[in-house]
Amino acid sequence: MEILKLGGSVVTKKDLPKTPNTEAIKRLASEVALAGPRRLVIVHGGGSYGHPLAKEYDIAAGYSSPRQLAGFSMTHQTMVELNGIVVEALLDAGIPAVSIAPSSFIVTEDRRIVDADFSIVSRALDSNMVPVLYGDAVLDSARKFTILSGDQLAARLATELGATRVIFGVDVDGVFTANPKLVKEAKLIEELSLSKMRGMVRIGEALSTDVTGGMLGKINEAGAAAEVGIEVQLVNALKPGVVNAALRGDKVPCTWLRR
Amino acid sequence: MEILKLGGSVVTKKDLPKTPNTEAIKRLASEVALAGPRRLVIVHGGGSYGHPLAKEYDIAAGYSSPRQLAGFSMTHQTMVELNGIVVEALLDAGIPAVSIAPSSFIVTEDRRIVDADFSIVSRALDSNMVPVLYGDAVLDSARKFTILSGDQLAARLATELGATRVIFGVDVDGVFTANPKLVKEAKLIEELSLSKMRGMVRIGEALSTDVTGGMLGKINEAGAAAEVGIEVQLVNALKPGVVNAALRGDKVPCTWLRR
Repeated sequence: MEILKLGGSVVTKKDLPKTPNTEAIKRLASEVALAGPRRLVIVHGGGSYGHPLAKEYDIAAGYSSPRQLAGFSMTHQTMVELNGIVVEALLDAGIPAVSIAPSSFIVTEDRRIVDADFSIVSRALDSNMVPVLYGDAVLDSARKFTILSGDQLAARLATELGATRVIFGVDVDGVFTANPKLVKEAKLIEELSLSKMRGMVRIGEALSTDVTGGMLGKINEAGAAAEVGIEVQLVNALKPGVVNAALRGDKVPCTWLRR
Repeated sequence: MEILKLGGSVVTKKDLPKTPNTEAIKRLASEVALAGPRRLVIVHGGGSYGHPLAKEYDIAAGYSSPRQLAGFSMTHQTMVELNGIVVEALLDAGIPAVSIAPSSFIVTEDRRIVDADFSIVSRALDSNMVPVLYGDAVLDSARKFTILSGDQLAARLATELGATRVIFGVDVDGVFTANPKLVKEAKLIEELSLSKMRGMVRIGEALSTDVTGGMLGKINEAGAAAEVGIEVQLVNALKPGVVNAALRGDKVPCTWLRR
């Protein structure tokens, strides 16, 4: 079983309010379809759907005021809307995609999935469906609610369901030595060991800066899957053909995260 | 804790394809808001959203052909869309409504909820939210998938969460001695005992006809809640003010289902 995580910067236009990247979504749906039937779970991020509302109502921090309750609900609803667009594109491409709402079955403990029952996802897989989940506003046992990132969810699904590989589709080729959007000399790191990754995370935390341009949180979550021997691959899902090639097992520009 | 079930004939225009009864939804949202804050779960039916797709793909019967997989997903997605309209109206009325997707946490066994974990619903209630669920296409351990009616779900939520009352909001005043839409002399049954109700269900099954005009399935499900001493009330949710009065505990034309 494999997991394909599609970042919020892939399925939405991050700089425009609540704007799906319809072209990318449709193209990726057909790339997945062309790769042939397989046991696959798709997880997508929030981008310009979930993020602005989550930020406005400070949902990730947890409960502090009654007005957040509506904000919690609206954050979920906007993700449901984006998810509907993704699921419809997958169905149109002939993939038996089925939406599963994380907040309807996952309760985090202080922002982390500690003990969740993922059997609904395996059951959908067993029925030859392709479950589609997403980063979501979820109930939390310590904070009443919080934000569960699609990255944490994808890594956790991978370890819980025994995935062989998790592909993180992002808007760059992988992890670079510097932010490739800012630094021309930035070089793609083709293989990143967990220990080296953790060093980068520590430096990032110490300096309160993310040299990779926003990739540290993601690879830190992905590390949990790499840790138990699951192949973790970061690829550029905005470049046509890359996700299809990766699914087929062909070589693409990417970063492999290794134990 | 109380449960308000709003029928598909209330929240949609059943004779028009995929048409919400926006006026009724908005009015009911404000009737609930005006009744004041309370521990309340709302469940709604499918009407012209869920039913046509469920029928076209024969989802209730369970799996027989791969083409049903997309139909299963589309049936769920159309319910998600209707649910989004209901939740938005409730939020607009100031109710901290939160959508919970039945298919993301309930697996039926041969069309019945046998053993489900409803803790996500109680947790939302404990956080002062108003959970909003709906009749849904769900995974089934015997048939791969089926349709879970909002009526079965409402009755089961009531018994599992220890509700004091379930109000079924329908498009007539309650259970009549005959179909009130066809028979002028039909009289409202103000109190219906479980044993009398079961007699009506038996006669209905024997004659393959529902003398009440489609109410037998509903009261049969509702019976499970009445059985354990929960108050079950059928009221006309299309008559302005009735749901509000019922929530406040005022007398309205209705049928009480009694043990």
